[in-house]
Amino acid sequence: MHIILLETQLAENLGAVARAMGNFGLTSLRLVNPRVSPADPKAIAMAVGADAILSNAPIYSCLSDATADLTSLFGTTAIEREMIKRYYSPRRFAEWSQQQESNHPRIGLLFGPERTGLSNDDLAKCNGVIHIPVCPEFSSLNLGQAVVVIGYEWFCAHSHCHHEDSHLHLGDTSLATHQQVAFFLNALEQKLDTARFWRVAHKKPIMWRTIQNIFQRTDLTEQEVRTLHGIVDALTKQT
Amino acid sequence: MHIILLETQLAENLGAVARAMGNFGLTSLRLVNPRVSPADPKAIAMAVGADAILSNAPIYSCLSDATADLTSLFGTTAIEREMIKRYYSPRRFAEWSQQQESNHPRIGLLFGPERTGLSNDDLAKCNGVIHIPVCPEFSSLNLGQAVVVIGYEWFCAHSHCHHEDSHLHLGDTSLATHQQVAFFLNALEQKLDTARFWRVAHKKPIMWRTIQNIFQRTDLTEQEVRTLHGIVDALTKQT
Repeated sequence: MHIILLETQLAENLGAVARAMGNFGLTSLRLVNPRVSPADPKAIAMAVGADAILSNAPIYSCLSDATADLTSLFGTTAIEREMIKRYYSPRRFAEWSQQQESNHPRIGLLFGPERTGLSNDDLAKCNGVIHIPVCPEFSSLNLGQAVVVIGYEWFCAHSHCHHEDSHLHLGDTSLATHQQVAFFLNALEQKLDTARFWRVAHKKPIMWRTIQNIFQRTDLTEQEVRTLHGIVDALTKQT
Repeated sequence: MHIILLETQLAENLGAVARAMGNFGLTSLRLVNPRVSPADPKAIAMAVGADAILSNAPIYSCLSDATADLTSLFGTTAIEREMIKRYYSPRRFAEWSQQQESNHPRIGLLFGPERTGLSNDDLAKCNGVIHIPVCPEFSSLNLGQAVVVIGYEWFCAHSHCHHEDSHLHLGDTSLATHQQVAFFLNALEQKLDTARFWRVAHKKPIMWRTIQNIFQRTDLTEQEVRTLHGIVDALTKQT
């Protein structure tokens, strides 16, 4: 996928776009009539290591030259225009581009000048429009941040692996078995009996259920169960 | 949801975070030991109208004060740490926070200093970790851009309505009926017959199917069909 920036005005934004591209595995940047140089120190500073994307970016004098070899061109906007166009959310665009891979499309993503965005004439040259969802009360999206949203969705769709359910990172340890947790809870219960923790005997059942729930809810690891044993032992010796 | 920035070093990043928050409907920013003032002109300039978020941000001297009233704290990182933690993708975190709404959680989202990110001690204070998917070869994500990714997912999940399939924006016009399109195609076919377009008669059926497919594939509107009639008429009169 090619990122095409039209008449970009601020060097910082060139750098921010390059950095976002690097983060999300995009490498091809094309500049049409940039108002600042991609070699500007402010651009290099903002790119933070992605400056090769800037130095490799070809510069064109008109949009039709920059898009001549592409098979699909998408404009980006934060506001829906009155134009008969197919609109995509960033997520649906990313999914579409992923599904199209077997057709070997050469896709360009067009971003307009910071102050005005894409003109309706520029949008008329696009095959579709990506509408970035933003809060209607504050819809002015920074150029670099717009590239972040679309690059992020593109990366998620093309790398496939990033929306699994939340997972517990276990490192070198393993989840404790029910027997290991029960062994700890039995030890704890005995210590609490000895310490006369329950005060009123008939309240023990409900209190004990509450305590068990604290520990059963948290997916303890074997190492953590050993640590809990150690805590109870240490506290018992202290008294 | 509260965005909590720990020891932020660059005023530009404070501004970029505020702007991204404004874009995605987040308003509560908390600063812990910022190294720069939220009133810094560079911060105000980058906030582009979201500077009220900066001026309303309370400043704390330690993380525990900034999080005292919260019910859940999530750290953010671009690299998985060796820590027994539950990890979420930005999307799964956003869905989780949306599902939790009936519990009225007060959720904090913690971002570390630019140069180092969150320390393992800071992460140990968090209930979970959000891992932002980035290209492993270039995983250094700008602070403002990290807030964009999570803010974007949060906004999508909480506003519900942003990932419908791509849709054709129709404005005041309507999709043409099959009869209207057929009427145009019949007129075109007659004009092509008159113009002896088919050269070899037996090739007409396959050529005519190709031409019909061009127009049948594009979801024409009534207005566009009228325009196409006008084009064919104008070209016919010209010859």
